[in-house]
This record gives sequence, C-alpha cells and structure tokens, in this order.
Amino acid sequence: MTNRFDRHAQGVYIIAATPFAEDGSLDLESTDRMVDFYLDCGVTGMTILGIMGEAPKLSGEESAQFATRVLDRVAGRVPVIVGVSGAGLDPMKALTDRVMAAGAAGVMVAPMPSLQTDAQQKKYFAQVCQTLGPDVPICLQDYPMTTKVNFSTETLLDIFRDNPQIIMLKHEDWPGLNKLDRMRAETGSDQIDRISILVGNAALFLPQELQRGADGAMTGFAYPEMLVEVVRRHQAGDVDGAEDLFDAYLPMVRYEQQLGLGLAIRKEILHRRGVLASPKVRAPGPVMSAADHADLTRLMARLDQKLAALDT
Amino acid sequence: MTNRFDRHAQGVYIIAATPFAEDGSLDLESTDRMVDFYLDCGVTGMTILGIMGEAPKLSGEESAQFATRVLDRVAGRVPVIVGVSGAGLDPMKALTDRVMAAGAAGVMVAPMPSLQTDAQQKKYFAQVCQTLGPDVPICLQDYPMTTKVNFSTETLLDIFRDNPQIIMLKHEDWPGLNKLDRMRAETGSDQIDRISILVGNAALFLPQELQRGADGAMTGFAYPEMLVEVVRRHQAGDVDGAEDLFDAYLPMVRYEQQLGLGLAIRKEILHRRGVLASPKVRAPGPVMSAADHADLTRLMARLDQKLAALDT
Amino acid sequence: MTNRFDRHAQGVYIIAATPFAEDGSLDLESTDRMVDFYLDCGVTGMTILGIMGEAPKLSGEESAQFATRVLDRVAGRVPVIVGVSGAGLDPMKALTDRVMAAGAAGVMVAPMPSLQTDAQQKKYFAQVCQTLGPDVPICLQDYPMTTKVNFSTETLLDIFRDNPQIIMLKHEDWPGLNKLDRMRAETGSDQIDRISILVGNAALFLPQELQRGADGAMTGFAYPEMLVEVVRRHQAGDVDGAEDLFDAYLPMVRYEQQLGLGLAIRKEILHRRGVLASPKVRAPGPVMSAADHADLTRLMARLDQKLAALDT
Amino acid sequence: MTNRFDRHAQGVYIIAATPFAEDGSLDLESTDRMVDFYLDCGVTGMTILGIMGEAPKLSGEESAQFATRVLDRVAGRVPVIVGVSGAGLDPMKALTDRVMAAGAAGVMVAPMPSLQTDAQQKKYFAQVCQTLGPDVPICLQDYPMTTKVNFSTETLLDIFRDNPQIIMLKHEDWPGLNKLDRMRAETGSDQIDRISILVGNAALFLPQELQRGADGAMTGFAYPEMLVEVVRRHQAGDVDGAEDLFDAYLPMVRYEQQLGLGLAIRKEILHRRGVLASPKVRAPGPVMSAADHADLTRLMARLDQKLAALDT
Repeated sequence: MTNRFDRHAQGVYIIAATPFAEDGSLDLESTDRMVDFYLDCGVTGMTILGIMGEAPKLSGEESAQFATRVLDRVAGRVPVIVGVSGAGLDPMKALTDRVMAAGAAGVMVAPMPSLQTDAQQKKYFAQVCQTLGPDVPICLQDYPMTTKVNFSTETLLDIFRDNPQIIMLKHEDWPGLNKLDRMRAETGSDQIDRISILVGNAALFLPQELQRGADGAMTGFAYPEMLVEVVRRHQAGDVDGAEDLFDAYLPMVRYEQQLGLGLAIRKEILHRRGVLASPKVRAPGPVMSAADHADLTRLMARLDQKLAALDT
Repeated sequence: MTNRFDRHAQGVYIIAATPFAEDGSLDLESTDRMVDFYLDCGVTGMTILGIMGEAPKLSGEESAQFATRVLDRVAGRVPVIVGVSGAGLDPMKALTDRVMAAGAAGVMVAPMPSLQTDAQQKKYFAQVCQTLGPDVPICLQDYPMTTKVNFSTETLLDIFRDNPQIIMLKHEDWPGLNKLDRMRAETGSDQIDRISILVGNAALFLPQELQRGADGAMTGFAYPEMLVEVVRRHQAGDVDGAEDLFDAYLPMVRYEQQLGLGLAIRKEILHRRGVLASPKVRAPGPVMSAADHADLTRLMARLDQKLAALDT
Repeated sequence: MTNRFDRHAQGVYIIAATPFAEDGSLDLESTDRMVDFYLDCGVTGMTILGIMGEAPKLSGEESAQFATRVLDRVAGRVPVIVGVSGAGLDPMKALTDRVMAAGAAGVMVAPMPSLQTDAQQKKYFAQVCQTLGPDVPICLQDYPMTTKVNFSTETLLDIFRDNPQIIMLKHEDWPGLNKLDRMRAETGSDQIDRISILVGNAALFLPQELQRGADGAMTGFAYPEMLVEVVRRHQAGDVDGAEDLFDAYLPMVRYEQQLGLGLAIRKEILHRRGVLASPKVRAPGPVMSAADHADLTRLMARLDQKLAALDT
Repeated sequence: MTNRFDRHAQGVYIIAATPFAEDGSLDLESTDRMVDFYLDCGVTGMTILGIMGEAPKLSGEESAQFATRVLDRVAGRVPVIVGVSGAGLDPMKALTDRVMAAGAAGVMVAPMPSLQTDAQQKKYFAQVCQTLGPDVPICLQDYPMTTKVNFSTETLLDIFRDNPQIIMLKHEDWPGLNKLDRMRAETGSDQIDRISILVGNAALFLPQELQRGADGAMTGFAYPEMLVEVVRRHQAGDVDGAEDLFDAYLPMVRYEQQLGLGLAIRKEILHRRGVLASPKVRAPGPVMSAADHADLTRLMARLDQKLAALDT
C-alpha cells in the first residue's frame, strides 16, 4: 500500500489538471484517462486541486466528487495529495476530512496573501496544523510569484521545525536555488527532521535543482515522462544525460511557463495528446489565441525533432 | 414589497456581520436579533456575506443557510444584497441563483486581485453579467485597499454604461472624493443612467461624501443609528447638524477603521450592545488584546458623554 | 546645544514640507518662515526630506541646499533629522555625510519595497548601519501603507537589538496599536535598550498611542500646535484633556490623511496660514480640486468653532 | 551619423551594465572595453542606466560621468538610449537635458509604481513628454514584473497615439505574446504611426517574439552575439536557424533570467569573458554563492559543447 507520502518522498508528483467537458461540467471519463496516463508515465505521486487544478472555480461538491474519482482510479498505487488552500480554516478542515477519509495521502497548503510577516506566517501554519489535526501530512507550497507571500529561509525552517506534520516542501520560489540549498542543508539535522523537497515553478530549473539536492518535481508539465526520466537519470548518476534530456524539452518548458496562460497551454497539449477530451478552462480563465496555437504546433514539431536527434 | 433595490436606492444599507457561537458554529438566534436591531435602527437595506461577513470562511451550505435566515427574518421589509465575490464564475452563479430564489434583492461583486488593467476589469464584469443573467441587479464594490484592484473613473463609467444591470456603486476608494464627484456628475446622463452611490470605507468621510452627492452609506459601523440619522439630516437640508452628529462619533468611526482588526471591534461592540451573543470571529481572524478592550471601553464612555452634550 | 536626539527623544518632531515657488523652484524665504513657524509652535524636533518633503523630486544639489538652509535657520535650537532613504547605499552615504557635517542630528531610513522577508530586512539595516558608520543616529520608519514593507514586531526588535545606532522608531504601521505596545514593553530591557517611539500615520490615533506609551509624534499635520499641546497635556497627566483637544481636530486630521492628496492639503493649509508663499507641489503630484478647496474652507471654519467652544 | 533612433529601429539594443572596480567606484576603463565589446558583437544600439545599469545606486554626477564616457567611446556609431526613470520630473528633465546635449539618441522611461490605473498612466506619460520637450525621442518600458505597473494594450496604444515622440516600446510584459501581436497590428496605421518594438524580459521568448513581428531585442544577455545572430537569421528568412541557435543558448538565457540575481550573473559572465575587470555589484545588490558559480561554470561548458555541435 503506497498511499502515504513521507519525508523521503521522491520522484515526480504530477500536478493534475481538472478535466472539463466543453460545456464546463466535470469530465470524469477524461479524469480516468488522465490518471491512467500519469501512472503510465511513471509518476510516483499525484497532486490534485492545486492552482493548476482550478480549485477555486469548483463548488465544494465538485471538489469532493473529482477527488473521489481520482482516488478510486489511483486505487492506492501512488499517494495522492489534495490542495486545500483557502481563506478560512473551517472549510479547509471540512475538505481535508472528506478527502482523507476517501484515501488521500495528505494535503497541500499555500499561504493566504495577507500573511506578510514572518510572525503571521508562523502563526498561520501553526493554526492550520492544529485545525487539521496531527495525523494529516502536509506539503507546504512556497510559490511567491502567485501567492504574493515571501518566506525567508529562516522562517520556513522554523515552520518545519515547529510543525512536524509538515513533511514536504513544494519549492517554487524564484530565484530560489540558494534557498533550496539551505533547506536541504539545514533539515535532516538534530533539530529539524529531513523533509522531502519537490520543485515546481514549471520545472524551469529542474536539473540545477536536482544537482542541489531536490528529491524530484511537483509540477504540471504536460510531458510527465520527461520529468520522470530526468529524475531517474539524475538519481542513477547520469547527471549530464538528465540535463541533456531536459534541455531538449526546455523550449516547451519555457513556453508553458507563462503565468496564467500556462494552464490553457497544458490542457491543450493534454488534449492533443489524447488525454483530455476537451482543453476547456473554466471562466474566468486564459484562452489561447490562434497565434498561440500556431506557436504550440511549431514547438511540438521541433520537440519531436530534438527527441529524434537525441535517440540517434 | 420593497425587496428590490434600484438606481435611486438611498439611505443606509448596513453591512451585516455573520454571528457565530463561541464554538464557531453559525448563531442563528443572534442572526435574528441582529436583523431586528438593524431594522430598528432604520436602515433602508442590508448587505450580507461581504468582506465583513467573513464569507470566505463559510462553507457553501452555511452561506445559503445564513442568507435564507436573514431573508426570512427581513421578510421583504427592506432589500437584501448578497455578496457573491469569488474566483470562479460557476460558484458565483450557483450562489446567486440560490439567494435570488430565496428573495435577495441583488448581489454585490468585488473584483478579483488579478484584474490589474482596465481591459481586464471591463472584460470581467461583462463576464459576470453574462453569467448571472440580466435579471440580477448588481452592486459593484470599488475598494482598492482590500481588493488591490484600482479602477480609474473612466473605466468605472465604461463598466456602468456597458452593463445596465450594474446599478449601484459601493464607493470606497481612498482617497476618493473627486472620483465620487465624477461618478455623480457623469452618470444620470444621456449616455449612462443614474446609479445609486453608497459609500463605504467605514464611513470615514461620510459628511463630505454626502455633500458631494452620495446617496447614503453601505458600511458596517456598529452604531447604525448614527449613519441613518446623519443621512436623514443631510437629506433634510441640515448639513451642519448631520456633520455635528457625525463628528461626535468620529473617534469611534476612526477606531473601527483598522483594516482587519475592525471586524473584531465591530463584533465586540455589537456584543456589548446586546445584539450578538458572542463576538466570535472565525480563524484565521483578528483577536482584540486587553489593551484594545480598554480602548474600546474608554471610547464608548467618551461617546456617551459627547452624545449627552449634543442633546443639551 | 540640543542638536542631537537620543533614546529619550519625546514631544513633536514635525515632518517638514519643502516649500516651492509657483515656478517650482525652491522657496528659501518660505523655508525660513516655515522653520520659525514650527519652532513657534513648540516642536521639539524637525524631520526634513521625508516622503512629505518630496525628497525624490529634488536633485542632490537641491536636497543639500534645502537641508543647509533649514539647519542654519534652526541653529541648533532643536534636533533636525534628515530623510535619506533610497535604493542605493552609496548615494545614501553621500547625503548623510553632507547633512551630518552641516549639523543634522541624525537620519531617517525607510526600507526599500524589495525587502519582503525578515531576513532581507535585517540584512538591509545592518548594511545601512555599516555604510553610514556608527556615529550616525538613525530613526527607522515603519510605514507599510507607503513603503509596502511589513515588519513583524519580532523583526523590528531584532533590528533594534543588533544595531544600537538605530535609536528611534517612526511608528506608522496600521493597524499598529498592539505593535506599539510590544515595542514599548520589549525595549528598555536588559537585551534591548530603550528606544524613542514617535508616531506618524497622520497622528490619526495619537491619543491611543500616547496612552500606550508613545513618546510623541512625528508627522506633518498642518496645525503643529495641536500635536504639541496634546502631547504636553498627556505628559502632564491630563489624559482626557489631551484627547478632548485632539478630537476637536480629528475631522481635519482625518481629512488630511488622504494618501498622496494629503501633501497638497497640508501645503494649502500652511499657505492659508501664511507660512508658505505658495502651496505648489512638484509634478508628478496631487492637485486639489475646487471641491477639495471648498471642503477645506468648511472644515477650517468648523475647526475654529470647535476650538472656540472648547475655550468657553 | 547614426546617433538617432527612429520608428524603424531594429536589431539589438544591448542593455549595458555599469562597471565598477572592486572598491565600488566607477570603472571607466572597463566601460570603454565593454562598449568596444558590444560594438564588436554587432549591436545596432545601446541602452545605458537602465535597471540592469544600477542607475538608482549612482549619484547624479556619476550618472552623467558614465553616460558621457559611453557616448564618447561610441562616437556616434550606434544610437545610445539613456534610462531616466524616476519619481520626479524635475530630476528626469535635468538628466535628459544633460545626456541629450552629450549626444544621446533619446531616453527610456519606465512608469512609477504608483501608476495603478489607465488614467494615471496616460496622464503621467503626457506629463513626461511635456516636461522633456517634443525633441526628445522616448522609449517606453513595459515591464510589470519589476515596475509593478500593468498596462493594457488599449492604454499603451492610446499613449503612443497621443504622444508622437514615444516611438519605441521595450516590450517585456509576461505573458506578453498576444500583447505584442496587437501592438504590432494596431500601430503603423492611419491612427497610430509605426513604432519600433524591441523585446526584453531577458529574451526568454525571442524567437516567438520575432515570429510575431518584433523588430529585435533590448536586453542585457551576456552573449550579445547570440541576440545579434538570431535577429539577423530571422530577418534573413532563416526562421528555423534562428530558433536553433537560440535554443542552444536557452539554458543560459533561462539561468540569467533570475530576477535580481540575474544582474550578478551577467556581470560575472562579462568578467569571465574578459570584458569587465570586476563583477562587482553595488550594495544593496545580489551576490552569487559558490554553488551559483559552479552552476555557471557547468552551463558555460555545456554551452560550448552545444555550439560546437551546431557547427558540425
């Protein structure tokens, strides 16, 4: 039974999309296909209802329905983390209880925009832990570009030390390489237990981050097989091979990493790859222009060429 | 039947608190008592589930339960506006349908923080109107200090002109007196119909705003009788008398207008006045210190003295 | 010789305007008159080239010329603090050296907007102290509404403890009363020496802040005599009398506290009171509308009436 | 004489560093060498005293001294644009007059952070144009990630139409590809003259931007020869060849594009390439860690390999 994650979690926890039909309703068939696709790619975990999962655009009922469907389909083969961030602790607790009962491995919590000082940040995560209870493993999301909350390394370390149920960091501060160094070096010590560090920020710095000790990636890149293979090669000691493969995909990684628009691009790629029946994004949300579609077609063709060249 | 509001709405639309018991559950008895209190104060309308109403800390079910309770108690005596702001249009539509069916007069919508340009703002409110349907009257909330969204006067005028179902402005830009002037002067013309302008921002500039043509106030000051009487005097031509009364309350208005903390102060005053059984605020939320309580005791006593002096 | 300030500084350090002629040039005659006016009001210090002093709109040469003129006119009767905030430490050092040589008592430093974490804030103030040298007394300005930098109380305490030349806090966080409590309670101890705490934020909470232990005010209210007398009464034990006087001025304090526009209002009042030859504000800057002028006329008349009533 | 730029400016306007000696003083010898290096790379223009040029850390005197040195060394071979952004129009005017007299081709102006609405943005650029006078060609910098100012396409178009001396756009909004499309399509018409569009944002999307009609790049990438050759190939019709070359450099482009830290990385590369005697950045500023240096060494070696592979 691998439906838990722990302080040694590694590999790729893919950030899952939430599939919709053209009319905007939940597409549960595509959900099943997407889960199968991710598992076939070799992911070691899955994170649903994150920012890319359009969580704030779902009703509470839809969130629970979607989470249950994913958990049923995964059936314990890999741990599933559920995003539960929000402005109130009561709704967070309710959603957490519901998904944990349905088999989730833990939850992910990003800070609210109002947490502007170290003291507010520490207090908030203490409240979150107390509210959710000590049995719920938590992944803390550090993503200032989107949350508008900046954690110092010192503050993050304090939060991890003081709240032992927070066992994973979704690292996506930017620039953040030196923060990652310190988070790696100053945990796993007498004072703070080891934590799992998975990197996000669209994986734009994945090779550099692995070289600095990241345990893997947690992001929604629409070619999860690349993330899986890059981490695999790196862990097998093939640091250059890992970076060579990554670099072949980098033009696409870079193209996906367009804040806001990236969600539409990822859904479109998953649609083109046959995973999602529709690339539909709920409103208000980004819409790709004809020129964006043309960019994507071109970049996908160039990617095929690069991969072919790597194989020879 | 006065359960609608229109372009001529005036007086005081009180921003209602959401009463909780000490254990954090909805307190429906205090809800009834609060509604009665507001009506006894002479308000001409009520706005629930706004920022002060702790809306993001309620589940969907609780929001509907609370709204229904208020609407039942009000029983059509004054129009009730329901805050439905949020990140997704689907949940906004669902809540709107539910409360309109239950007798709400309309809804209030504040912009999302991501709406940073005039073009984004216009597009969003067009989407909102299309989603909610033309039969739902809308109050637009312009409150940059909290929403982090700044509308130019030009953009606001465009939005009102292009979306005739937006008929009321909750004006709480700060500094905002000259914006108010222009919103008054440039609506009610051939091109843009008259709109109702009610002022918020804790009513800190209420006399000045009435003098510049505001139709009244929409804020949650814990002494609604002052707001009602100030507007009444002003409309009766007693401009000085209105401002004299306001100035007596100004030290308290100023004390309440502490961003974030103000919610706790207002609930505490309503509690001390016998309206709310408990001043409970849901987490994460502000908590008054002992010194804050002492401030409040002192300011309430001084207010009594000032009012006594005015009466003589 | 009182041209130094220390950890016991109290009373009113008035934030000085920078007078311009109608053509935008420095008005040194009005500068002299303004200095005399402030001294006649009984201020215990003066702060120039702050945010209200339009410092970023002056050339380096003009800043030095204006500072020298003020220092010459003050002639050591009260300490003068000079605002030297900026994006680079080299220009800060150059201006500091120049004004300290000319007789300034010390400098005021606000954080740059990029200092978003506690670690960055601590590092920056350490760098500032090292750059300016240990002989320069520093007032730290904590004004999040304008600087966009939020200090936790803990971080402020660390900065004061680690940098003994920072001896004064310009407290204008909002809401900030409980922060003030802690800054008062946790300095003047074995670990951190006493600091002088003067309050800003337009003095909107001056009585409450004095009651919580503030040493006085540092703000640019255009009736400095009120600030002086309120602090005097409070220190003499007449807490109610202090607050009564303050409350009479509160409608004007509130009107001046309009972010951005406040500068124009203050200059206009100083002009009407005969202090400044012109209310000129350099571009880009706020301009009062006709309605703003009418507001001011009305509020000044009402203030006179209130003061007359207090005297009887 | 090519020291002017016009609405058809194209190619690469390199963003120049400001070289310092280890002790922090201006390094004018390195300045000469840097100018020669840029010209040898084939740039068609140069932009100095921008954000990367550490302008706010220079005194007015140093700015003028550095600008004069660059202008003298360039000697009219390519146009030089000077960044003059700042909080006050008077200092902006003074610096503009000085550098235009010394032979600058024009100036670059970024918006102040306070310009949060379309109306404020339009008013500000009208003021800037009026202040600087109609003979000064202006490049408008649209870089929200750093300036915190978001222009809608509509607003930008209005600004260009209403202020004919603004003839160039430094396009670095992100995501910004569709904005670029519209700026290209809706200028060069009856209503708005053609404008030159050069792209920044570290050139992360340069091929896509050229494909959408950008005229070239204005950024500070430490391998200007890549920018020059990519633009040349693209303009010669070799769209694939342009993108192939770009992709080889993309891992480095991506590594440099670390907000804040990027400046230190660029100076370090220019130092390693023999252009700058020292990679010194003035305080407060970024400092590379040992791990950053190791990253850079690795990425530079990998770049050499990729370029060698491209040549074969």
